[in-house]
Amino acid sequence: MPYYIGDVIKDSKNLVARTPEKFRETGVDVRLDVRAEKVDRDKQTVRLSDGTMVPYDSLVLGTGTTAFVPNAPGVGMEGVFVLKTLPDAIAIKSYLREKQCRKALIVGAGFIGLEMCEALSGLNVATEVIDLAARPATRWDPEFSKIIHEELTRHEVGFSPNTGMSSIEAGKDYRLRLNTNSGVMEADLILIAIGIRPNAKLAVDAGLRIGKSGAIQVNFSQKTPDENIYAVGDCCEVYHRVSRQWTHIPLGDVANKQGRVAGINVGGGSMIFPGVVGAQSFKVFDLGVAAAGIDESEAKESGYHPVSTIIWGDAIARSLPGEKRLGIKMVADRATGMLLGAQAVGARGAVERINTLSCALWTGMRLEEIAYLDFAYAPPFSPAWDPIHIAAQQLLKQL
Amino acid sequence: MPYYIGDVIKDSKNLVARTPEKFRETGVDVRLDVRAEKVDRDKQTVRLSDGTMVPYDSLVLGTGTTAFVPNAPGVGMEGVFVLKTLPDAIAIKSYLREKQCRKALIVGAGFIGLEMCEALSGLNVATEVIDLAARPATRWDPEFSKIIHEELTRHEVGFSPNTGMSSIEAGKDYRLRLNTNSGVMEADLILIAIGIRPNAKLAVDAGLRIGKSGAIQVNFSQKTPDENIYAVGDCCEVYHRVSRQWTHIPLGDVANKQGRVAGINVGGGSMIFPGVVGAQSFKVFDLGVAAAGIDESEAKESGYHPVSTIIWGDAIARSLPGEKRLGIKMVADRATGMLLGAQAVGARGAVERINTLSCALWTGMRLEEIAYLDFAYAPPFSPAWDPIHIAAQQLLKQL
Repeated sequence: MPYYIGDVIKDSKNLVARTPEKFRETGVDVRLDVRAEKVDRDKQTVRLSDGTMVPYDSLVLGTGTTAFVPNAPGVGMEGVFVLKTLPDAIAIKSYLREKQCRKALIVGAGFIGLEMCEALSGLNVATEVIDLAARPATRWDPEFSKIIHEELTRHEVGFSPNTGMSSIEAGKDYRLRLNTNSGVMEADLILIAIGIRPNAKLAVDAGLRIGKSGAIQVNFSQKTPDENIYAVGDCCEVYHRVSRQWTHIPLGDVANKQGRVAGINVGGGSMIFPGVVGAQSFKVFDLGVAAAGIDESEAKESGYHPVSTIIWGDAIARSLPGEKRLGIKMVADRATGMLLGAQAVGARGAVERINTLSCALWTGMRLEEIAYLDFAYAPPFSPAWDPIHIAAQQLLKQL
Repeated sequence: MPYYIGDVIKDSKNLVARTPEKFRETGVDVRLDVRAEKVDRDKQTVRLSDGTMVPYDSLVLGTGTTAFVPNAPGVGMEGVFVLKTLPDAIAIKSYLREKQCRKALIVGAGFIGLEMCEALSGLNVATEVIDLAARPATRWDPEFSKIIHEELTRHEVGFSPNTGMSSIEAGKDYRLRLNTNSGVMEADLILIAIGIRPNAKLAVDAGLRIGKSGAIQVNFSQKTPDENIYAVGDCCEVYHRVSRQWTHIPLGDVANKQGRVAGINVGGGSMIFPGVVGAQSFKVFDLGVAAAGIDESEAKESGYHPVSTIIWGDAIARSLPGEKRLGIKMVADRATGMLLGAQAVGARGAVERINTLSCALWTGMRLEEIAYLDFAYAPPFSPAWDPIHIAAQQLLKQL
């Protein structure tokens, strides 16, 4: 009989509660509010926090990640949050509703922090973001970070670069005070969004292999070196088709796919997970921001000889009204002309272009072909020469 | 010295007039209001309608297409239009402005006819479309034609299926009367949009080869069998990467690319045109409609063993507001699992999905891979399992 155990289900308690029949019908024993504490690989059992031992034929680890919180004074105070789980989100919403928040500080200008700028501003909470880096969204080119920064400014969200938190204490004008290397800031709510770490302890304790990324090592079948143990989702590594390395890319869509692959293999079928190209996007106010593949420094590390270009084009025909400025960056290998990475930013069409280029990255397509790809052109959807064509043609000149 | 001669430039007279300096600077002799009447391949000269003979080293034919008008009484009457050239558009706009049109009839429910529904309705002209077929947009699956038909209805545009025109005469309640096999209709404006034919006469007279599509045969370099004569754009054939046949797909973006390829080859460079996958889109009111590749019957003709499926998914995360229903059809080869064609229809995200699948079609990607492609997932832009994944997984079951 299959079991589901642990945190992830616990977080989704309401969801599970709505469909207990469905689980029972399929013969699945869902155990909530317990934690898997130890895996005994020889005996093929898992010890739960309530003391029971559960035997297994196949074990799937889906232990996810935990939001990283620095070891700084005050991080445990009321009003200081991370945003990783459904209960985190509910806690933030409850706090906002009950405490009449006027101001919020977000520590970390990654995609979670930036998405929360829009959410908090939308609730009329004055919002400011700080980051240790000189700019927001450092995965993206500085030229695109600048656009993101402008979008924050346009919506009255402050951004403090080169700023790290040292401690949190009670505030004077607002509930909380954040001490940083660039001075003191106050707010009613502080969100810490400086990254996540894989929950690999159960695997480490069981002697399974951990990759250099800190996540659990798996093969294409999502299997660990133990024949009977699989790992899926944010807790494990994933093969990057462009860098050709195993890396840690904890994203929901990837986790979904890995779960299915493991499930099919556990169930006696055969399936491999084909890997990822590192596609990612987020929305910050009116701006779509997306990327796939690798940047110049990752390309160098992998052994490629990167060249890159940024072009500014139009997402739709220039003759049509509306905001349509679209920036596309492409990185390619000088020797082969193979596309290695792409980034896009714009009020419309950015994510869609990156999805198309994800497909190109997937197959190792060269710029020469990308420059003449056949798209479903019509003026409301693109110019006759799409920004993708223009960027590829521009970059071809550097080969 | 390069020459540009003929209709296309004539249509764009205003455009050229704005940049005569630019043409002169580059040493290009632009001749307007003349027509190339005869090509003498032995003497390498072109006779113009003003009697002059122009010598050439390389000749590029870009004679385009002509809107097809049936040989029916009354098609030459005032108020009866086609829409192919810039002057056609100007004539329609002038007529609409000057004649207080209350009602328009569109003959032909292809993409030009359907785009004009939106344009005319937007000017408060009551609009009705007729077509010989039982449904609009026959390139698309009947299930999608139904959605298009519903979109017309929702915007009070009538559609008369199985209806062909026989003649036009003066009207009683409106300026014009259209006689059809299903009765008499009246309107102030009639637009005939039942397709186009390649302008291949110059090539035919010169003894160049014409394909079974009626368009001029070229090779990958856009060259005709005559070493010194090229053809580009709507007048010539194009290689379809999926059907692996030379066909006629007269679209602006394809023409642009072919022009560049021929230009580079004429100029002493070397470049091939890699072909198309038949990507196409149009917008009708709030609906995006797109397709790429081939359908079941084209697949059979080409020798494939097609299977197909239609799924209805969400263009963005279900939790977000707004119209997001998206239909995707996929056609694949049963033997190899290779994607052969895709169609999409929806208020958002349809064209973008087809562009991504165009890239997949370009490289001959199989469903197995498409079902697990890595996209830049975020809820404002797609569900974690994109409709593309769902359609591919659905169709995989039929292999």
